[in-house]
Amino acid sequence: MFREQIKVLDCTIRDGGLMNDHQFSDELVRNVYKAISKSGIDYVELGYKASKTAFSPKQFGAWKFCEEDALRKVTDGIKSNTKLSVMVDIGRVELDDILPKSESVIDMIRVASYVKDIDKAIHLVNHVIDKGYEATVNIMAVTSVIEQDLDEALKQLEKESPVKIVYLVDSFGHMYSEQIQYLIKKYKAFMPSKEIGIHTHNNQQLGFANTIEAIIYGANYLDATLYGIGRGAGNCPMELLIGFLKNPKFDIRPILDIIGKEFIPLREKVEWGYLVPYMITGMLN
Amino acid sequence: MFREQIKVLDCTIRDGGLMNDHQFSDELVRNVYKAISKSGIDYVELGYKASKTAFSPKQFGAWKFCEEDALRKVTDGIKSNTKLSVMVDIGRVELDDILPKSESVIDMIRVASYVKDIDKAIHLVNHVIDKGYEATVNIMAVTSVIEQDLDEALKQLEKESPVKIVYLVDSFGHMYSEQIQYLIKKYKAFMPSKEIGIHTHNNQQLGFANTIEAIIYGANYLDATLYGIGRGAGNCPMELLIGFLKNPKFDIRPILDIIGKEFIPLREKVEWGYLVPYMITGMLN
Repeated sequence: MFREQIKVLDCTIRDGGLMNDHQFSDELVRNVYKAISKSGIDYVELGYKASKTAFSPKQFGAWKFCEEDALRKVTDGIKSNTKLSVMVDIGRVELDDILPKSESVIDMIRVASYVKDIDKAIHLVNHVIDKGYEATVNIMAVTSVIEQDLDEALKQLEKESPVKIVYLVDSFGHMYSEQIQYLIKKYKAFMPSKEIGIHTHNNQQLGFANTIEAIIYGANYLDATLYGIGRGAGNCPMELLIGFLKNPKFDIRPILDIIGKEFIPLREKVEWGYLVPYMITGMLN
Repeated sequence: MFREQIKVLDCTIRDGGLMNDHQFSDELVRNVYKAISKSGIDYVELGYKASKTAFSPKQFGAWKFCEEDALRKVTDGIKSNTKLSVMVDIGRVELDDILPKSESVIDMIRVASYVKDIDKAIHLVNHVIDKGYEATVNIMAVTSVIEQDLDEALKQLEKESPVKIVYLVDSFGHMYSEQIQYLIKKYKAFMPSKEIGIHTHNNQQLGFANTIEAIIYGANYLDATLYGIGRGAGNCPMELLIGFLKNPKFDIRPILDIIGKEFIPLREKVEWGYLVPYMITGMLN
């Protein structure tokens, strides 16, 4: 399944951090960055860029804020072609927190938005692009909106923003392959100038399968996490995705190494994955 | 996804028993039979019918042999429309161990066979049918045979046996949706008179997804197990399958009940499911 345009983004620390208030040690984050870099993954997302007025640094770890110093500490001195990403939530970031690209180690900023906030998302992502970053808009929770509103949001993105990448996000792990097909086709039809990304959740053990389905229908930006760590049931497991892609630029071994060393022990403490309560919430959307 | 012809078979005890030498207590098996019956599942497979010359009753539990008395003990007095199935392996069963249907509580006998043993499988399944049982042939390990040999086996089944159901089995959990599509189409093309069944393994978290894929391409006999229990990485989870099928004849509640009471505690002792060693074996076929 080799397709040159495909880019893989590891969001282990960002999505996994939703299970532990982003309290990962610098050492773990540095090891993740090193392993992902060695594996040749295209992007790594090390957390959110959230405002300290929205979240208390007493409760939340450094990866909720992704300040430049923190990012430099875990990346400095590591040979890497992997680009650095952070996520921002509408209403939880101050525009002034975002430095001009020339002053930052960050390469990409991803804007997470609900359909109802699409105007704010467009304003924010255009600002991010003006500051010199690569950018995406990740539209969340699309299985629980009126379809006409989603259509409208996609049309607006096409017209009102130069953003090059828009993600389909299955926030509740509710979609089957049919829905993935349908929505990827819709995203491509409404936004012919954009690349489509896919971010899945594993409530029904379909995170990996739905990512494959999205690839087949043309998604080129793929989110995954080490051993599937992520909020609740978790995400598409990176090790499965890399095994599937068979792209010679990726090396699965550093991924298997760090899973064995860090994430299998971590799973004893933080309980993500396929569990009955998450399964039921997925089924019921 | 309502299709009247679809039949679901629970093989919790049979495939799950490969993890504990079929040492399930009578009480557990009775509870499984009760829950599956209450849920309206079409078939339940309570084990293998193996010869005691092939396996020692000292090492293996009752569900390796499925004698009539054992089966009656766990089914007597329970209201049920669920048909009773057992599996036989080529070379591990004596023909005389199989009673005429009129003397047995068993409804269906499934013959598991490798491609190379297809002549023996046809002989055995025809014998089973002559004795009055419903029957299937489950062809295992098809991802590791020369395709021409598989084609030949399918043609033979079509010509030389009245068996109505032939299963596609992904023994190593190696298939992606593409392979499922391709093989289901092939099975239907070579065996136009048969129904096709699907039995998946979950090494790459694709057990459920591949079962859906098989349904889309026309498989009407579906194997699943409670909480996905089964050899190694396990099988397609029954709870996900029933949630997907949305057939009013099925009730998911008895399934969720028994998972909570029996299988979540059992998972602490018997380690099936998505684990790195199984993942790698799946990836490598």
